Amino acid sequence: MPFSVRIDRLRRDLELVAQFGAGPDGGVTRTSFSEADREVRAWLAGQADQSGLARRTDGIGNIFLRLPGGGDGPPVWLGSHLDSVPAGGRFDGALGSLAALEVARRLVEERVPLRRPVEVVIFADEEGNYHHLCGSTALVQDYHPDELAGLRGRAGNRLVDALAGMGWDPAAATRTAVRPGAVHAFVELHIEQGAVLERRNVQIGVVTGIVGLGGGELVFTGRQDHAGTTPMPMRRDPLRAAAELLTRLPDVTGSISEPAVATCGVVVTEPGATNVVPGVCRLQLDFRDPDRDRLLALERAIVATARAAAQRHDVAVTYRRESITDPVQLDDRIQRVIEATAVQLGLSTLAMPSGAGHDSQNLAKLAPTGMIFVPSVAGRSHSPAELTDWDDVENGGNVLLATVHSLATE
Amino acid sequence: MPFSVRIDRLRRDLELVAQFGAGPDGGVTRTSFSEADREVRAWLAGQADQSGLARRTDGIGNIFLRLPGGGDGPPVWLGSHLDSVPAGGRFDGALGSLAALEVARRLVEERVPLRRPVEVVIFADEEGNYHHLCGSTALVQDYHPDELAGLRGRAGNRLVDALAGMGWDPAAATRTAVRPGAVHAFVELHIEQGAVLERRNVQIGVVTGIVGLGGGELVFTGRQDHAGTTPMPMRRDPLRAAAELLTRLPDVTGSISEPAVATCGVVVTEPGATNVVPGVCRLQLDFRDPDRDRLLALERAIVATARAAAQRHDVAVTYRRESITDPVQLDDRIQRVIEATAVQLGLSTLAMPSGAGHDSQNLAKLAPTGMIFVPSVAGRSHSPAELTDWDDVENGGNVLLATVHSLATE
Repeated sequence: MPFSVRIDRLRRDLELVAQFGAGPDGGVTRTSFSEADREVRAWLAGQADQSGLARRTDGIGNIFLRLPGGGDGPPVWLGSHLDSVPAGGRFDGALGSLAALEVARRLVEERVPLRRPVEVVIFADEEGNYHHLCGSTALVQDYHPDELAGLRGRAGNRLVDALAGMGWDPAAATRTAVRPGAVHAFVELHIEQGAVLERRNVQIGVVTGIVGLGGGELVFTGRQDHAGTTPMPMRRDPLRAAAELLTRLPDVTGSISEPAVATCGVVVTEPGATNVVPGVCRLQLDFRDPDRDRLLALERAIVATARAAAQRHDVAVTYRRESITDPVQLDDRIQRVIEATAVQLGLSTLAMPSGAGHDSQNLAKLAPTGMIFVPSVAGRSHSPAELTDWDDVENGGNVLLATVHSLATE
Repeated sequence: MPFSVRIDRLRRDLELVAQFGAGPDGGVTRTSFSEADREVRAWLAGQADQSGLARRTDGIGNIFLRLPGGGDGPPVWLGSHLDSVPAGGRFDGALGSLAALEVARRLVEERVPLRRPVEVVIFADEEGNYHHLCGSTALVQDYHPDELAGLRGRAGNRLVDALAGMGWDPAAATRTAVRPGAVHAFVELHIEQGAVLERRNVQIGVVTGIVGLGGGELVFTGRQDHAGTTPMPMRRDPLRAAAELLTRLPDVTGSISEPAVATCGVVVTEPGATNVVPGVCRLQLDFRDPDRDRLLALERAIVATARAAAQRHDVAVTYRRESITDPVQLDDRIQRVIEATAVQLGLSTLAMPSGAGHDSQNLAKLAPTGMIFVPSVAGRSHSPAELTDWDDVENGGNVLLATVHSLATE
């Protein structure tokens, strides 16, 4: 393939799009269906028109930009999302979206003869202000009108009102599912959001699957006591048991698998007063593994470790599972296409699971799906500190271009 | 001494006073200078008048009820406080206050010839809505007008406005100090607020001193990361280091002394999101020991343990001391009077430090001071579950009566 993405144009687009919802510190807040989202959608429509791409938006706000040619068969899809978390970064979603636009422009500019249609897809609300992976979920299965009516954003506002505010008919948001077989393949370029590629000095990650994700709450209950008048050996301090579990989490994950992770990001003590031995300690847990059986084994191991710690400290513990999202395997053949493409471009590769959730995990239910990762500087993500070197942006764009070219001409 | 307190009257008073600021669950909320405080003060004034006690209130709201007779020398003081923490119990402060009233009544009723004046003292705002041990602090040293003007309650309101609302002149609140030598002795009866007496099945605690109290904040700083994309060995999770310290606190206190305690009642993670490895973890610490050198050694040991844990987990830690309150030794002679009195009444005794702060720690700077403890059921305090058996209330009242009788007739 004798042509490549134009990094100057892709860089300009990334810098320009970062202005929609720009924060004071280089980050962006571009919540789905916000004013900033409206602006970026308008800008994208202009780019599509200039580039000769036919555009449409489905009922939930997913955008489709179709290249001319390729016939009437199931299309090759490529894309990502343009919404962000609050105070997020410039690359999460935007890289895959704007690289897909650039790939489309290059295929059009080079008048590449296509054997299949090609469509850039920008998924709505990937960051889940209204629903986890909202737009791609709607492609797998229609939202029931009652479910849709109940969805609300962080600010408490209803999704149906947000859709109406965009000038759309909320009823159309319940008719979005794509029939099985309607898509030939899907490819998403994304920043890694971790530091594995950087630490191993590898240029391209070939994603093997998306890890399974569990969430739950451990509640340790002991006895609330006066901090001054209760001798240490008489205490039944739930925080002691919780702390013991926290120190053991790395061993627990290590006993399950190498990629297994478990995180406690929220600790709450009750009553939460400086001079009171807590009566209750709550830990919010996030745990992940690329394999479903191992994910459930990890959950069991965490709970068993918590129980043993609770027993040692004479406190009680209960566990409430909040969610289990199954892991997803990405398509073997597309992994091989990505791998071969990268090698042909002289880039180093690493097969790796994604620890973060992506629209690709929904798309994998519809079509053979692949993901391309590029390094994140210091692994920072969901933060204004999110950064990817321009060389890596270019590498990722070229792997995406060559992969889509291969899939659309096979 | 052929007479004793009338437990029926003392019990009636305790049950009646529990109605001022009563909560739905048997507890009380009687914040200083609140409506409930105003009510209990009015009730107490009526009781004093009926009992032939001369009453006055100083500029900060401390109440003095003087028995007839005893001459013009330095008085024997006895008393405690009638304010409570929010959702506190019926005995903390109220027991010592109402037992002091009962002792005064019995001395008057029995026409006991006094060699010294006797005054019941009810200290204002012991629970420190406006200032830690507010009223007794004002007896040791006048508040500077600027300091007084800056004091605010939990609700944000100013102390000077609260005083004016009671109908008092706030300027008088800066002229409250008592000259050294003006008080012959002070004795306070209080619930233990811990479970030591109950567990050892002892009826009377002879308080040897009030522990020193330290407060400070440890801030562990690591690296905020995505909970899904950051492998466990790559993390610099400050919560891991904090948890390690927390598991070691019992060993740290044990290495200092048997009565040493250290408590973390508040844990804060930042940013505090379920799916984010925290970047910062803050621990609020409360640590106590009856000996000043050991208190400072305890602080050093906690900080050293935190530093070692931080180093092991590749995170930073800083410590900021918020306060050190020196321990107070109570008067040896008054301890012997209390001890002899209790033994004469056939009660078992235990010499013990107080782990909680009390007005007695201020009074000890003014006069020889003693404290009498009675058991707290299950050690519960600062809670509606606070409870002391009526037998123990009676025992405590009688030891207070005999001790004051001894001091006032010596």
